[in-house]
Amino acid sequence: MRTFDESASGLYIISVTPFLDDGTLDLPGVDRLVDFYLSQNVSGIVVLSMMGEAQKLTPDETTQFVQRVCARVNGAVPVIVGLPGGGLVALKAVADIAVAAGASGVMVAPAPSLRSDRQIVEYFGSVADVLGDVPFVLQDFPLATGVQIPAEVMSRIIRSQPTLKAIKHEDWPGLNKITTLRDDDARQVSILVGNGSLYLPEELDRGANGAMTGFAFPDMIVEVCRLHAAGQREAAYDLFDVYLPLIRYEQQPGVGLSVRKYLMHKAGILASHRLRAPGRSLNAQEVAEVDWLVARQSRRIKR
Amino acid sequence: MRTFDESASGLYIISVTPFLDDGTLDLPGVDRLVDFYLSQNVSGIVVLSMMGEAQKLTPDETTQFVQRVCARVNGAVPVIVGLPGGGLVALKAVADIAVAAGASGVMVAPAPSLRSDRQIVEYFGSVADVLGDVPFVLQDFPLATGVQIPAEVMSRIIRSQPTLKAIKHEDWPGLNKITTLRDDDARQVSILVGNGSLYLPEELDRGANGAMTGFAFPDMIVEVCRLHAAGQREAAYDLFDVYLPLIRYEQQPGVGLSVRKYLMHKAGILASHRLRAPGRSLNAQEVAEVDWLVARQSRRIKR
Amino acid sequence: MRTFDESASGLYIISVTPFLDDGTLDLPGVDRLVDFYLSQNVSGIVVLSMMGEAQKLTPDETTQFVQRVCARVNGAVPVIVGLPGGGLVALKAVADIAVAAGASGVMVAPAPSLRSDRQIVEYFGSVADVLGDVPFVLQDFPLATGVQIPAEVMSRIIRSQPTLKAIKHEDWPGLNKITTLRDDDARQVSILVGNGSLYLPEELDRGANGAMTGFAFPDMIVEVCRLHAAGQREAAYDLFDVYLPLIRYEQQPGVGLSVRKYLMHKAGILASHRLRAPGRSLNAQEVAEVDWLVARQSRRIKR
Amino acid sequence: MRTFDESASGLYIISVTPFLDDGTLDLPGVDRLVDFYLSQNVSGIVVLSMMGEAQKLTPDETTQFVQRVCARVNGAVPVIVGLPGGGLVALKAVADIAVAAGASGVMVAPAPSLRSDRQIVEYFGSVADVLGDVPFVLQDFPLATGVQIPAEVMSRIIRSQPTLKAIKHEDWPGLNKITTLRDDDARQVSILVGNGSLYLPEELDRGANGAMTGFAFPDMIVEVCRLHAAGQREAAYDLFDVYLPLIRYEQQPGVGLSVRKYLMHKAGILASHRLRAPGRSLNAQEVAEVDWLVARQSRRIKR
Repeated sequence: MRTFDESASGLYIISVTPFLDDGTLDLPGVDRLVDFYLSQNVSGIVVLSMMGEAQKLTPDETTQFVQRVCARVNGAVPVIVGLPGGGLVALKAVADIAVAAGASGVMVAPAPSLRSDRQIVEYFGSVADVLGDVPFVLQDFPLATGVQIPAEVMSRIIRSQPTLKAIKHEDWPGLNKITTLRDDDARQVSILVGNGSLYLPEELDRGANGAMTGFAFPDMIVEVCRLHAAGQREAAYDLFDVYLPLIRYEQQPGVGLSVRKYLMHKAGILASHRLRAPGRSLNAQEVAEVDWLVARQSRRIKR
Repeated sequence: MRTFDESASGLYIISVTPFLDDGTLDLPGVDRLVDFYLSQNVSGIVVLSMMGEAQKLTPDETTQFVQRVCARVNGAVPVIVGLPGGGLVALKAVADIAVAAGASGVMVAPAPSLRSDRQIVEYFGSVADVLGDVPFVLQDFPLATGVQIPAEVMSRIIRSQPTLKAIKHEDWPGLNKITTLRDDDARQVSILVGNGSLYLPEELDRGANGAMTGFAFPDMIVEVCRLHAAGQREAAYDLFDVYLPLIRYEQQPGVGLSVRKYLMHKAGILASHRLRAPGRSLNAQEVAEVDWLVARQSRRIKR
Repeated sequence: MRTFDESASGLYIISVTPFLDDGTLDLPGVDRLVDFYLSQNVSGIVVLSMMGEAQKLTPDETTQFVQRVCARVNGAVPVIVGLPGGGLVALKAVADIAVAAGASGVMVAPAPSLRSDRQIVEYFGSVADVLGDVPFVLQDFPLATGVQIPAEVMSRIIRSQPTLKAIKHEDWPGLNKITTLRDDDARQVSILVGNGSLYLPEELDRGANGAMTGFAFPDMIVEVCRLHAAGQREAAYDLFDVYLPLIRYEQQPGVGLSVRKYLMHKAGILASHRLRAPGRSLNAQEVAEVDWLVARQSRRIKR
Repeated sequence: MRTFDESASGLYIISVTPFLDDGTLDLPGVDRLVDFYLSQNVSGIVVLSMMGEAQKLTPDETTQFVQRVCARVNGAVPVIVGLPGGGLVALKAVADIAVAAGASGVMVAPAPSLRSDRQIVEYFGSVADVLGDVPFVLQDFPLATGVQIPAEVMSRIIRSQPTLKAIKHEDWPGLNKITTLRDDDARQVSILVGNGSLYLPEELDRGANGAMTGFAFPDMIVEVCRLHAAGQREAAYDLFDVYLPLIRYEQQPGVGLSVRKYLMHKAGILASHRLRAPGRSLNAQEVAEVDWLVARQSRRIKR
């Protein structure tokens, strides 16, 4: 098991969950998927996220999938497991599975029922208590959870919970929040940005450590993070801009995962582009649009 | 196993899930709980609903709880099991557990991602396909799901899905929707009202068949339904009005379940009033308010 | 002009805006309406609230209506004028009209775009600056505005803005918020409760000073407040309970104002029950339901 | 007055509302602003939109601003005036001002209270009745209004309302909706896309006629539309991609208008970059980010 801590940087890839065309979980396909991610030099792998169709798995599938991923990763990079949001006992049950399988940490989003700043702070206190010494990522995604966490509240959580190691930052707009957190004299944790990496270069400028997202071309994000860390800011922006038309296309709500699975299937990484219902695959026009954007992207890369 | 079909009427009680003070599932307490509900002449028992803290159970607890309830009910009345909302495979897994345990039907709410009328109709078509011949209840609760189902869309679902047997009606406002459904020449299903029974008498006037709710005094709801069905409308309203101050108190968001557990614990039905986090128990002032309302209610009943 | 300050208590009636059957503003009818409210011993009159169809008036009608109300009230009680939410300049323009007409104060809700606690505090600072020495009411109605104001944030606003004289309290659930505000050592302002007075007795128990709502039988609310202030708590609850079935009926979203206008038209107070589009009048079944509830209410009052 | 009808294409620029540094409406500045837009070869000018800070103007300012814009445009292109959403009478009052000033059409969004498909259809029927023969644009922006209009409902409105001439399309995701509308045998109206033009090239591919947005470099959008209409699809995408990093930056909620005003002030088009409260100007880091993106954009244009 690899350590996951405040120094996390680079790309923590949000893994898809692979299904076969008949909708069954493609456990053998997990190995190929993990190998692909590792070949792209990701810093970590995140499973059972919202985008990972976690809530569509049965309990048995959840266990099998986590175990298979951890076994194949075999300590090469940290594995982070997303936890369900319903209650602390159910959350702990999945955390136990994750730890037993060899995961390095877990990810927790605020419960949608939280309303006041104090409730938010208390909730993550309870979460940390239940998790014990398991490192955790706080997913800050108000558009999905309905819970706004102001920067000052985030600082209070960071100060009081030493097992909080990273924030998956996808507040929107969120640039000033990164700056506020970085300027704070609170203990600093890793800030890994989500939102499909749509604002990755600016977020790195503001002090983010890397990304936690699921783009179909992970090597680009890895390289943007590397260039930026190496002080080659202009080159980072140049590379990012080449992929921006596709990143933007993925931002359409409910479309991103279908695009990723389509492209990964086309590239031979996934056996099927299928999502479990109520997700859907791309239709013919969308396939043509994605193909067009990728063809343009490939030509620009060559130049 | 008792049949559950379009003739369902009276009270289908939304069961609480009993925990001990230390937060563990109180499996032995399930028997006392079931016996209490049956003693109140409920027409059915609904477990794993939103209010039932279903999402706070681990997979193992879910199975144990469903089995224990079904075993104790032992065919006396239909048991209905609420299904998780994430995806069809996960939903089917719980439905299989329910059927194996002897439940008579299941309950399904629309997935929060549904947006258009057509998507809603298609979703319940997929649900019905996956469930096969298992009778199901459609929970129509826009305030919680974010999905509006217009009456005409509901009629299309009713027409096309013969295994849909009942609607848990908690649209708000919803009186005219009941009338529209009753006036429709579509196949008629049972309409069982929720919303804590706040509009029960008017809803019965409009054509509802009964209630599906979790009030701490189930015998009142059973009796209001009986009086109304017997043509004693004024008596039904009179009885309802006595309990209305408490029903109203329960309507405060996030408070209702705590009130019910408090009262059922006080009455010796539950070993503990505890909710699993992030739920909370009543504070001292709320306890005093509930006690005050129940004392007033008791005095009015005596008169 | 009557003073409006922190001692406000009793009922500040949320006034309807009267239209004729053809939808024109019924300016002469304003006098009859004001006379009715004054005859019920209200402590104040609030115009241009959300419920008052303020946003359906043209700018000229807005001015004429405010002037007519103030002229007829003629200093008998304070008049409070609801301000539009778009921006400070537009808000100030209506405040100027109100003050020129003789109103005693204004009411302001948080702009829907506010997200963090700090933004909320700053917003009401800007509002107070713009209003100068005009006393104002803060409308705390998260269900309508989407803005949650935690009790601690409310205390900060109360401390820093001496021209804030009262809160229209309609957070939901909100009982504990009243207690927290009353226990705070901050400057105390008047708390007048909304939400159609559904929790009026408990809210008075918690320390509210009165109500700011628009029920069709204002004298009941005035009397409940009086009884409670006189220490006759049981009598206050008894009186409230008689009207509770109708209060509850009014709580159906989008129905309350139609019920009030129907009843006030039937009682000869309004020339028409009409709402301006997109509002609607009661249909035949709803009229029958309201008549039934009022008939039952009248019989209980007689007993 | 220029005719506005179903043939509308190219760019209908969403005009900013110019203020001076002290927050007063900059009426003389309107002339310079209009001249700038006309110099960019826009097809039309839209004032008093959501982005145009319409709700922050007093009634007098609203009238003065509309009159000044129309006078300066002087028939060169159609002027479209956004109408307030509160009610039909208030909406009509602004429409009258618009028509009297010489505007060619108006824009209407669905009232936020609309819930069912039928209510939506009826609402736009009432709107069309009130407007008489004034051509109108339907703004389809669910993220802002909370009202989802499925494609089939849009078709019903298009069929039944001949004075509906164009849709401001900013549903998200929305590509398939355009295709469905174009494949429908209903009367075809103009589809002008919003969402800051983030999906402009794909939307033109799907059959949109042009854009209705407020980007600070209108000539780019005009040229993308021209190239696409001329069959030069690749060139249209190439040009669009150059500006995409800035378009993306503008998409951050609550930031877009500040970016536009900053850039237009820097270019000498506006006397001030100021927004009226509760809007805000860019902070120093945001200014640096925008400058950086524009500098990169300028270099790419030269290449």
